[in-house]
Amino acid sequence: MTMADRGAEPGQASGAGEPGGAAIEAALDAGFDAAVAELGAFCRIPSVSTDPAYGAAMAEAAAWVAGRLRRAGFERVETVPTGGHPVVTAQRCDAPGAPTILVYGHYDVQPPDPLERWTTPPFEPSQRDGRLFARGVSDDKGPLLIPILAAEAIIRERGRLPVNIKVLIEGEEECGSPNLAPTVARLKDRLACDLVVSADGAMWRADLPSVTVASRGLVALDVVLQGAGKDLHSGRHGGSAPNAVAALVRLLATLHDAHGRVAVPGFHDGVLLPDPAILAAIARSHFDASEYFDGIGAPKPDPLPTGEALLVRQWLEPTLEFNGIAGGYAGAGTKTVIPAQASAKITCRLVAGQEPGEVLAAIRRHLAARAPSGFRLDMPGHGPGSPAFALDPEAPGLAATEAVLAEVLGRPPLRVAMGATIPIGTLFREQLHAPTVFFSFSTSDEDYHAPNEFFRLENFRRGLTAWVRLLDRLAALPTGGGTVHG
Amino acid sequence: MTMADRGAEPGQASGAGEPGGAAIEAALDAGFDAAVAELGAFCRIPSVSTDPAYGAAMAEAAAWVAGRLRRAGFERVETVPTGGHPVVTAQRCDAPGAPTILVYGHYDVQPPDPLERWTTPPFEPSQRDGRLFARGVSDDKGPLLIPILAAEAIIRERGRLPVNIKVLIEGEEECGSPNLAPTVARLKDRLACDLVVSADGAMWRADLPSVTVASRGLVALDVVLQGAGKDLHSGRHGGSAPNAVAALVRLLATLHDAHGRVAVPGFHDGVLLPDPAILAAIARSHFDASEYFDGIGAPKPDPLPTGEALLVRQWLEPTLEFNGIAGGYAGAGTKTVIPAQASAKITCRLVAGQEPGEVLAAIRRHLAARAPSGFRLDMPGHGPGSPAFALDPEAPGLAATEAVLAEVLGRPPLRVAMGATIPIGTLFREQLHAPTVFFSFSTSDEDYHAPNEFFRLENFRRGLTAWVRLLDRLAALPTGGGTVHG
Repeated sequence: MTMADRGAEPGQASGAGEPGGAAIEAALDAGFDAAVAELGAFCRIPSVSTDPAYGAAMAEAAAWVAGRLRRAGFERVETVPTGGHPVVTAQRCDAPGAPTILVYGHYDVQPPDPLERWTTPPFEPSQRDGRLFARGVSDDKGPLLIPILAAEAIIRERGRLPVNIKVLIEGEEECGSPNLAPTVARLKDRLACDLVVSADGAMWRADLPSVTVASRGLVALDVVLQGAGKDLHSGRHGGSAPNAVAALVRLLATLHDAHGRVAVPGFHDGVLLPDPAILAAIARSHFDASEYFDGIGAPKPDPLPTGEALLVRQWLEPTLEFNGIAGGYAGAGTKTVIPAQASAKITCRLVAGQEPGEVLAAIRRHLAARAPSGFRLDMPGHGPGSPAFALDPEAPGLAATEAVLAEVLGRPPLRVAMGATIPIGTLFREQLHAPTVFFSFSTSDEDYHAPNEFFRLENFRRGLTAWVRLLDRLAALPTGGGTVHG
Repeated sequence: MTMADRGAEPGQASGAGEPGGAAIEAALDAGFDAAVAELGAFCRIPSVSTDPAYGAAMAEAAAWVAGRLRRAGFERVETVPTGGHPVVTAQRCDAPGAPTILVYGHYDVQPPDPLERWTTPPFEPSQRDGRLFARGVSDDKGPLLIPILAAEAIIRERGRLPVNIKVLIEGEEECGSPNLAPTVARLKDRLACDLVVSADGAMWRADLPSVTVASRGLVALDVVLQGAGKDLHSGRHGGSAPNAVAALVRLLATLHDAHGRVAVPGFHDGVLLPDPAILAAIARSHFDASEYFDGIGAPKPDPLPTGEALLVRQWLEPTLEFNGIAGGYAGAGTKTVIPAQASAKITCRLVAGQEPGEVLAAIRRHLAARAPSGFRLDMPGHGPGSPAFALDPEAPGLAATEAVLAEVLGRPPLRVAMGATIPIGTLFREQLHAPTVFFSFSTSDEDYHAPNEFFRLENFRRGLTAWVRLLDRLAALPTGGGTVHG
């Protein structure tokens, strides 16, 4: 397609009034089946970052992203070693005077366990009822593919982009991004930008447009108790040998009080009062507690909390969650052993004011002080964690994302907090001095950390249009004085 | 070998003065390598009764036992359906006027997990340092093979046995023998006997001959908590969704008090005072607590209990042990899920006076009364369980087993209790009106419910001699009036 073609369609410009909107839309429509097929191919790569068994697939996924960026028209595409899984960087900076946008996403996915709960295998994408099912399709392979395809469509139609775009796709988001901060620090010049737009960070509800302006932080640790050197016969040794499961459940039960609140001294130190704007959004959202428990398939607790209380807990309060526990025999039937070892995995969500390192230290102090005699206690961590994030309500780019969502989704979005953790907000503010806005077209009900993860194809399509319009709108953003373009 | 041969060796008779002792010993020596090879072949069959995945192997193991009995000279060998795994029965009743002995053993084995802890694969027998390593070699395949080979040696030498022998080898001992009681009741006439001699029931210590005159009972149940319908993202749902692991550890922690004693109301109802004879044996055994903890590879608890206190807990006090726990993600790295389901496996060892059904009911009442709101609690059992067992000190056969052990092992055995459960003692007393003596040549340190199970080949060989002599000695036992022979 040539410049002359675009000039011939002035009446069908995009929502932001840029040229070629109708042609781009038509091209996105025409290419949509191919886009879905490409997303499927991407999802066939089992890029599970947390488990070393998937090392080869991680390298393959990074190469897939790099290749796709090159085909889309990006330049300086590079797979950069990090000490862990590599990041993929790229750029297309041919809009002098226009602002520079850094697009963020991640090519790694959650582990697929429990495998037996998947209707179709996690790495064999399957399309049903307008949804594509696969591990990682919603978090974050579908959402990260959208800006690449949107930029490709603009480049094909107009020959250039309305803003300078840089790309950073990492491979360790699902295991806490342990190498991202030093990598971004090292690539500070290459990644310099006016605004980060994250393709990660699911929208809150399928029926309610929203933009996320705050998210919780995260720290993770394991708790491992070892009694005897090996599992022992529960008849011969029962009563005299240390039972690691018994000791572990007793120790873990001290971490919460009878109301489920975290009972670790020092855990809540520094917690700030909630943002009144978010409390107001909670009130306006009319969140229904009964529907919530129905939705997750759980019996309703008695007494039933209010919807507002649930949202406050999800968005504004810190948590200490057990993600898993194991010890002894858990197969069919019975096995009369005294487990020698038992372990649990813990992650905490943090709110504004909590320091990840101090929270980790407080939990370790609590557990060590209560460590049962006759056992070895080990509490390995998983990286330094990340603090909670809050976006300045006046941040450049936030208004533009809200305007595009209002256009594409038909109603103005709510500004909400998110219980999950996207550590990049804090990282990019500190390292690149740039705000981060979240512009993802996955929805948080898409089971992205559970079996049968899916991505709504309707949102995949809408996302392509929305990203085209957002890039056009961002051309009007003021550029930072010291930003390096290219 | 002929009667004439035997008659030529009057000075080398067995300990009990029966003819052909030296010839039988020589035959056992000459055939010992073949016996070890046969035991290896038996252990290659992965007859794990508790896991339906091993169904074919269970049938194969039963057939192996039946075939071996036939080759030894037993008659009426039959594989009898039970509703679960079959029992194998056989007999050789050609000693009119002599007593009838029922030999008991089991061909099923414990699950081999955790597989990665085995030095050599559990179902590929491996001989090292005078030991044969394999799942089931000590419990109970080696010990049950001994009386078959001993009887075969006597039959070959003398053409007949000194007592009438019946055989009952079951296939569900490792999962609580759920079908044994009705099967024995149904086969009451076929199994009628004066005395049961169990080839199952390991000797207490390798360095101290002992006979077991009491054992603890057993009941088993699982505890399953289900919150949401599926695992949920710990960021999005953390704080509002039910965490099944958190609820389970809190619930399980109520089952013991701070000193590790069972805290279930009604659990101890009916417990009888310990047998003074066993308390005396405990005092004479000079059990060393420090060596005990070193032996199992566990850090010593502070304060260190006395050795006597440990033995009392092992033999004379009931337990409630967690055999395993599972929930959520337990793989490498982290997975930020809220587990929808968590479960634990419990077995209790019971002492004299406790009723298995009442103990089970007490635990279920305790857990149900504390069941957390917002979860489904399920507590499936594993059969009716079995009460504790105590042998009458004057039981016929007990003195004979003690005399043979004193001869073969060089010192008189101690009468001891056993922490483990052999439900057959009570069952055979009730159904066959016959006492049960334990005459096994495995030792309780042979890791028979753990990785690297082994059987001392020296004890395999000694056991053959001991069984030959025991059968000769039992010929002098008074026969019961109503016993059916044949």
